[in-house]
Amino acid sequence: MDNTSLKHPVTPAPSAAPRTGLEVRLAARPDGLPVPGDFALVEAPVPRPAPGQVLVRNLYMSLDPGMLMLMSGQSQLPSPGYGVGEVLYGDAVGEVVASADPSLSEGDLVVHRLGWREYAVAARDAFRRVPRDLYPRPSMHLGFGLVAYVGLMEAAQLCAGDTVFVSSAAGATGSMAGQIARLKGAGRVIGSAGSPAKVARLTGELRFDAAFDYHEGPVLDRLSEAAPDGIDVYFDNVGGEQLRAAIEVMNVHGRIAVCGALNRQRTGRPDEGPGDLVGVLGKRLTIRGFTLWDHLERAAEFGEQFRRWLREGALVYDETVIDGLENAPRALLDLVGGSYSGKTVVRLCG
Amino acid sequence: MDNTSLKHPVTPAPSAAPRTGLEVRLAARPDGLPVPGDFALVEAPVPRPAPGQVLVRNLYMSLDPGMLMLMSGQSQLPSPGYGVGEVLYGDAVGEVVASADPSLSEGDLVVHRLGWREYAVAARDAFRRVPRDLYPRPSMHLGFGLVAYVGLMEAAQLCAGDTVFVSSAAGATGSMAGQIARLKGAGRVIGSAGSPAKVARLTGELRFDAAFDYHEGPVLDRLSEAAPDGIDVYFDNVGGEQLRAAIEVMNVHGRIAVCGALNRQRTGRPDEGPGDLVGVLGKRLTIRGFTLWDHLERAAEFGEQFRRWLREGALVYDETVIDGLENAPRALLDLVGGSYSGKTVVRLCG
Repeated sequence: MDNTSLKHPVTPAPSAAPRTGLEVRLAARPDGLPVPGDFALVEAPVPRPAPGQVLVRNLYMSLDPGMLMLMSGQSQLPSPGYGVGEVLYGDAVGEVVASADPSLSEGDLVVHRLGWREYAVAARDAFRRVPRDLYPRPSMHLGFGLVAYVGLMEAAQLCAGDTVFVSSAAGATGSMAGQIARLKGAGRVIGSAGSPAKVARLTGELRFDAAFDYHEGPVLDRLSEAAPDGIDVYFDNVGGEQLRAAIEVMNVHGRIAVCGALNRQRTGRPDEGPGDLVGVLGKRLTIRGFTLWDHLERAAEFGEQFRRWLREGALVYDETVIDGLENAPRALLDLVGGSYSGKTVVRLCG
Repeated sequence: MDNTSLKHPVTPAPSAAPRTGLEVRLAARPDGLPVPGDFALVEAPVPRPAPGQVLVRNLYMSLDPGMLMLMSGQSQLPSPGYGVGEVLYGDAVGEVVASADPSLSEGDLVVHRLGWREYAVAARDAFRRVPRDLYPRPSMHLGFGLVAYVGLMEAAQLCAGDTVFVSSAAGATGSMAGQIARLKGAGRVIGSAGSPAKVARLTGELRFDAAFDYHEGPVLDRLSEAAPDGIDVYFDNVGGEQLRAAIEVMNVHGRIAVCGALNRQRTGRPDEGPGDLVGVLGKRLTIRGFTLWDHLERAAEFGEQFRRWLREGALVYDETVIDGLENAPRALLDLVGGSYSGKTVVRLCG
């Protein structure tokens, strides 16, 4: 964890309009796992905003394992894959440097999807203004709490008393999913992670009831020990062996929210998936893929609870901050490799 | 098809209380696919009913591919596996020969789960009395219309205009699912089956919009041709290649009702299942296993519609009748092998 971002000034003075800025383009479509050479760091001219456009200086961008699937051009995702030679995109938070649209002003804080570049110029509709004082630091606008919330409430139909298992539980979404499950009435919350330090953090500060390192012996054995009465909800960030173990241990009418596919992302190869569906049939399980974008109507209700939990200290928000766009490609690969905890962001023009 | 059962007298005179009756026991737990030697046909004494018990002469029993999983002792099913040396069980319809309980009388028609035997003696609660005139013939009490209905309405959340794909569509559940989908407002109904004759029947009498033989080339190609605009619902009786093709062709927010696992039952080996869940995630699909027993509250509403559809000729009820309990084991294997159409029943003491 790196909490230096806590010291980041909330309203830095906007620099003069820049002439050039760094951006990252897809140099080549990866065959399997990406390598650093698949990314190209380019210094590109920053145009002045045309009428109706806005120029934004990006403070932070989000790193997300799903970006690996966009790099591979996966066709079945809700977001379009990255094009070879084009700038990558992703969630970012920045501030308006120059505006040629009356509804945004210099100094406004905005979130948008034009990450992987220091400066973003686009039509005003590409940006959503957010309050400066909503969170302790602007990078928190990139958090995955709402993803975890809709996964639990909509896809997994969380009920009071449920035993919930979260894989990749020390990660950006998993750390939110486990804590939110507890706060929304789960009876028992179990997490898996990839190192003893992460496991200790899960049962420590993050207050999971049980946790295990998925490297330590068959996941089915570890999960069965952690969930002697079975599990009702599985928040799946991984797939593979953890998904199959969850199905095996699930109680009747259990629900699986499919949020991520880290196993595929780590190996660069298609995952085996849940295997034979006899358990899904016999135990009447539900497996449901979901995305935040289908459930934005729950953002306000979530935001209110989330900020209250933060104020009350009921929820810990973990964040890893990487400095500089030039380090983002390597950090994305390290993120998928399990190097970081909590939400990983890259500080750009901070 | 064999429609001789249409001539079956609705109320045959009960025979004198029998001394012995045939029953089928599990001789050995199959290793993979069962063979005829795994079944034992036994002539066993028929006890007189003790107080509170009822003696029923079985007219018809149901054959169901799921019985192969009960033979293999599969632990994840809602019903207990068959025990070695024990009589098999399964749905049956019969009539009361002797009753030692005041709430059932000689000649009453009852449905119950004590099939695989000519005579059943059990506590009164094991039997449910059904009206004699509900259906044209008693074997129709064993039909899978309600299974198809709850699969479509509950597990798949069928919506008006949906394109629905049904595998094993000429079978007991599939033929009901395809027709009921049409009658409940599906925009397009596509079926797969295992022979040209079955395919012709699907698009002919059963009024599917399109159908294909799953042996004819890659299922993905056949399904893509039949569903140029994708599918919204897949009623899965099979698993395997058909399940994976359905996921590939599914539209965003598509729903899969998992009803059966014929692919597993045909091979005696675990199925590969849906494979990598990236499509489930990206398209926000739902895969849901279901069983009739969770949704019995919908039986009355279904029965009313079902009988109206039959009266109006809007729905065709296909049935294959096998004569004699001694032929039931072979017929179960033939059923799984794809030899029959519609609902397969065995006539016992008819």
